[in-house]
Amino acid sequence: MKEIRIGASKEYSVYVASGTDSISFLMDKHKVKRVFILTDERVYNLYGSKFKTLAYEIIGIKVIKPGEDSKSIDVVMDIYKELVNCGADRKTVIAAVGGGVVGDIAGFAASTFMRGMELIQIPTTLMAQCDSSIGGKNGFNFMNLKNAIGTFYQPVFVFSNVNFIKTLDESEYKSGLAEVIKYGFIKDENLFNYIENNREAILQRENDKLIHLVHECARIKGEIVEKDEFDTGLRHLLNFGHTIGHGVEGASNFNISHGAAVAAGMIMESQIAVNMGKLDEKSMDRLIGVLKFFNLYDIKSGLDKKKIFELVEKDKKKTGGNIKMPLPIGVGNAIITSEVTLEHIKGVVNKNIRI
Amino acid sequence: MKEIRIGASKEYSVYVASGTDSISFLMDKHKVKRVFILTDERVYNLYGSKFKTLAYEIIGIKVIKPGEDSKSIDVVMDIYKELVNCGADRKTVIAAVGGGVVGDIAGFAASTFMRGMELIQIPTTLMAQCDSSIGGKNGFNFMNLKNAIGTFYQPVFVFSNVNFIKTLDESEYKSGLAEVIKYGFIKDENLFNYIENNREAILQRENDKLIHLVHECARIKGEIVEKDEFDTGLRHLLNFGHTIGHGVEGASNFNISHGAAVAAGMIMESQIAVNMGKLDEKSMDRLIGVLKFFNLYDIKSGLDKKKIFELVEKDKKKTGGNIKMPLPIGVGNAIITSEVTLEHIKGVVNKNIRI
Repeated sequence: MKEIRIGASKEYSVYVASGTDSISFLMDKHKVKRVFILTDERVYNLYGSKFKTLAYEIIGIKVIKPGEDSKSIDVVMDIYKELVNCGADRKTVIAAVGGGVVGDIAGFAASTFMRGMELIQIPTTLMAQCDSSIGGKNGFNFMNLKNAIGTFYQPVFVFSNVNFIKTLDESEYKSGLAEVIKYGFIKDENLFNYIENNREAILQRENDKLIHLVHECARIKGEIVEKDEFDTGLRHLLNFGHTIGHGVEGASNFNISHGAAVAAGMIMESQIAVNMGKLDEKSMDRLIGVLKFFNLYDIKSGLDKKKIFELVEKDKKKTGGNIKMPLPIGVGNAIITSEVTLEHIKGVVNKNIRI
Repeated sequence: MKEIRIGASKEYSVYVASGTDSISFLMDKHKVKRVFILTDERVYNLYGSKFKTLAYEIIGIKVIKPGEDSKSIDVVMDIYKELVNCGADRKTVIAAVGGGVVGDIAGFAASTFMRGMELIQIPTTLMAQCDSSIGGKNGFNFMNLKNAIGTFYQPVFVFSNVNFIKTLDESEYKSGLAEVIKYGFIKDENLFNYIENNREAILQRENDKLIHLVHECARIKGEIVEKDEFDTGLRHLLNFGHTIGHGVEGASNFNISHGAAVAAGMIMESQIAVNMGKLDEKSMDRLIGVLKFFNLYDIKSGLDKKKIFELVEKDKKKTGGNIKMPLPIGVGNAIITSEVTLEHIKGVVNKNIRI
């Protein structure tokens, strides 16, 4: 089991585990006694029978429906109710066992119930292990605004067992890979090289490969969060692929995975960087090569280009002023710039680049 | 205008102002641009016409009903909706103009909308200026649990203009005085002496007296918050009078003011301290003398003693284990102890001490 320390407003560890590694000694180490588990139906069906070994006293288990629709005030209120009924107090720990949705909702409930309970993240998807379980962002959707309500709230620890990843379906696994590739492309050339050189083994979900990917992403995410916990600057880097990616996701009516949409966004945003002379073609080709290998490449075909652009435009209007977004400037390097205009975006969305 | 620095997780100032002091230069100093105002009907009727001078751009004003019933999820959701409709973003500032209820709800909305907007507290009651506007606690009630949902969230600054206090009705003013007396009795003998020596002028709400009281309470509260922002130890001192006071409040069906209930609680809890040999009779007599002068003394008559005790018992059962509560040990001094039993409490509640 590997440990990564995250030095945010509260310091905590991400543990990257596999197969035989047990969470029990971590529970002891962190003096965890009473636990309330939040999970979703899919995870519960696969792993629910093992939940009773998680802690000494499990005062309740709340199973929500998988998917983005669960990120609502109604689900949050249901959790509050169960917490009251179970007799939870400030010393009770919420354990979030699931993907990004479970982690987001659990984090919000933990940060607001009785002005703050303890929180343990046990992410079960590649995306949650590499990204969303680290850094303390949580939230739910409101009036069609994604994560409109939320807080920054750091967990006691994160326990990422890569074994969970082996039961993910193909699309969810690849969706997570898109974010892993993103980390390599914007922040760490070694990680990107590793992905290129081990792509077959990664596709086969080999244990040591998964451990390496999760560890490296957690380390990179940790470094960024340490420098910008409250998302006022550097952390925007992680939005690479998301400016246009959110438009792609919306234009598909959320029928394509988040990761696939981000992959399309990364290609189009890289093309902008190439067009502006900030990124060399060779680097862009390497990005495309990797995404192509994992079938994360030609998602955009069949989508309404006009709709994609309209959604990006609307999103940007909401935040007002210039478009401030990250752009890659080479493998493992990216900057945040305000030079991109809506025209640049229109250009690459309409061109349906190289598909 | 006097300034007190509070060194919590975020450092900020409490400004104690009067009559001619203006908030404008503070808005400039803190670069406040777009403001959303939360207030209640009573404050709006008295001061609403002056709101437009508060900031350059006021994007919305939400007026809630006065009173504890507004501390609900429904009111919070209404505020979220208006914030979305007004186009509020993370850089928009919520200004809370009102008493404790307005401050609590505004604080919660500010801490959760878009993962955190800026917050300015403009408390208008003595209680809010002396206590609730400082220290970052916020929240709303849920399933009959007071402040069951909330966060710790510090403001950009607090602007306490004592002029507001002059338009409070008698009962609300005296309710605030109970908390001021509490601060003197548990933490500052000089403040307690000052109240004793200036009680007539305080009753007349003389300007310099109000400024002194608000300033001293803010200073004391600030010192406590700096040492225990997240309420894990020292901050419990501020609960003096509240363990039994909450029972008194409940037994009256909230027909007596919070301050009056706390006054009754302070007397009974002091009697426990006397009974345990921790507090001298003379100090207790001084407390009773001051409360008597402000008519904060014989509130308990007519209330159902059994009901008071039952509510305290229930409250304590909820938190589990020993009763941990502050007890005074002399004028200006208090400790937190676990030695008080339900029997001690039953004793003083039944005795209807010296009324």
